[in-house]
Amino acid sequence: MENFLGIDVGGTGIKVGLVSKSGDVLSHLKIDTDSLRQGGDFIHNFVDNLEGILADHPDVDRIGMGVPGTLSKDRRTLLELPAIPEFNGVSLGDLLQARFPNKQFRIENDANAAALGEYHFSDRKMPENFIFVTLGTGVGGAAIINRKIFSGGDGNGMEIGHILSRGRKLENNIGKAGMMELALETLRGYQGATDVNEHRMNSHELIRAATQKDGFALEVFDKIAELLGEAMVSTIRILDIKNVYIGGGLSVCFDYIISNMIKTMSKYLTPYYLEDLHINRARLGNEAGVVGAAALCFEESLVHV
Amino acid sequence: MENFLGIDVGGTGIKVGLVSKSGDVLSHLKIDTDSLRQGGDFIHNFVDNLEGILADHPDVDRIGMGVPGTLSKDRRTLLELPAIPEFNGVSLGDLLQARFPNKQFRIENDANAAALGEYHFSDRKMPENFIFVTLGTGVGGAAIINRKIFSGGDGNGMEIGHILSRGRKLENNIGKAGMMELALETLRGYQGATDVNEHRMNSHELIRAATQKDGFALEVFDKIAELLGEAMVSTIRILDIKNVYIGGGLSVCFDYIISNMIKTMSKYLTPYYLEDLHINRARLGNEAGVVGAAALCFEESLVHV
Repeated sequence: MENFLGIDVGGTGIKVGLVSKSGDVLSHLKIDTDSLRQGGDFIHNFVDNLEGILADHPDVDRIGMGVPGTLSKDRRTLLELPAIPEFNGVSLGDLLQARFPNKQFRIENDANAAALGEYHFSDRKMPENFIFVTLGTGVGGAAIINRKIFSGGDGNGMEIGHILSRGRKLENNIGKAGMMELALETLRGYQGATDVNEHRMNSHELIRAATQKDGFALEVFDKIAELLGEAMVSTIRILDIKNVYIGGGLSVCFDYIISNMIKTMSKYLTPYYLEDLHINRARLGNEAGVVGAAALCFEESLVHV
Repeated sequence: MENFLGIDVGGTGIKVGLVSKSGDVLSHLKIDTDSLRQGGDFIHNFVDNLEGILADHPDVDRIGMGVPGTLSKDRRTLLELPAIPEFNGVSLGDLLQARFPNKQFRIENDANAAALGEYHFSDRKMPENFIFVTLGTGVGGAAIINRKIFSGGDGNGMEIGHILSRGRKLENNIGKAGMMELALETLRGYQGATDVNEHRMNSHELIRAATQKDGFALEVFDKIAELLGEAMVSTIRILDIKNVYIGGGLSVCFDYIISNMIKTMSKYLTPYYLEDLHINRARLGNEAGVVGAAALCFEESLVHV
């Protein structure tokens, strides 16, 4: 049975996993992204590291890679990666192909890869069309349409963290930093009792409080739900997709946002949408990036809409 | 040379045109929609009328039809047509095929058809990917991706009149009625001189005043431009399309909105988008609906994304 390498490239760490056809992570390792910056040439160090990993897995022919940013439509060149600017403008596809001519590489935006991972490896039956939202430091997005990644006109659609939400980027409102801003603002106006302390406020603390039905924490998540619900209304009107999956590190708040999200969306969407609307938490957790990257190797994933 | 029939179904009138392969309207007629409501059975009357028209054009084998509303993914059944509810739930494709077995019918959302018309029959070279916005009584939208109509997951994407704009539907803000509401509100706060009279305010009056550099009218269009620009930011982030064409009856205001639209979009979009951003007025005018409907007959238009 063929195995694949899935590489999830992030600003702080690069995760590499040996992934089976059925999505099991057989082994994995993590490279500190900063360590590749030592000695100057990031790209050189990255490729050297990869060479070592490939040597350890001689049976692997196909490697998928998820990157946090935009790519050229042909998926060979990285364009804008705010977290790893060393990659900006690098024709990584050509470079890897030249260095490792017997291997096949697939490079894709990381949210797209994660959505594809959810599609292939979730333990439930997935619909052919769905919107995928990642809540974390930023807010990312992807869409699967007719079982394939929707990449838009020029290759980088679904940048939903950047759609407008009450006059600014959605990500500024409900990304990790925006969420804290929103929490502090809510706390200032909050009259009830709460055991959340503004000096040690963070997303984990908010979620801990919400599990204990803290009124303040629940109010913060109500607001987040409303903002995300509004953004989903616009996204759904543009894409006509009625299934939404929410993943990412902060999707642990799912239970505290789902009901107000649906309430908000019900204000704006018609029965045509609402009757088939399903919002679910993504099943894949930490391993989503690596198994999603591995799923890029599947032949049926290759055609972009 | 084969000719086609293009039928543009509207709430007040149904326009029928004999259209050449190159988009010339060779002859046309208009049916009052209300007249088909006489004697009860709208659908029956519609099909009878069509039979007469087809008898007048025995050489026409292919008929395209644009309708103002949503359709099933297979394009055979009309779902929700607010302006002509008699069509709701009607399997018009099957019905027409059964009645006229030797003819081919293609039914599509009217904004999608108009975008396709612009793609095939504009006198300028069109890009492979573009967003199409219609400004009129409502705000409609379509997208052409890889030279084909983008219909989204379930067939009815690009309902951009319904994306959220500062807490309500974009259409409520800049559709014909919303535009008047905005104008009256602006007038109340306007300190300068204007010869626009609130008692005979309408879109034509606003445009007339704008052509004469009336400060009030220009301020209204600045606000419309800002709202439309914001909506385009979200649409572009989701679709990654950098060409926008603006059509519809109210696109006569194009010259008065374009500069503030671009200014607004520049606040939110990065160079990746802005360097290739092109916003143009659509070339096809009144005949857009009919020639767009005819373009649905072209083989290359058939595959939906």
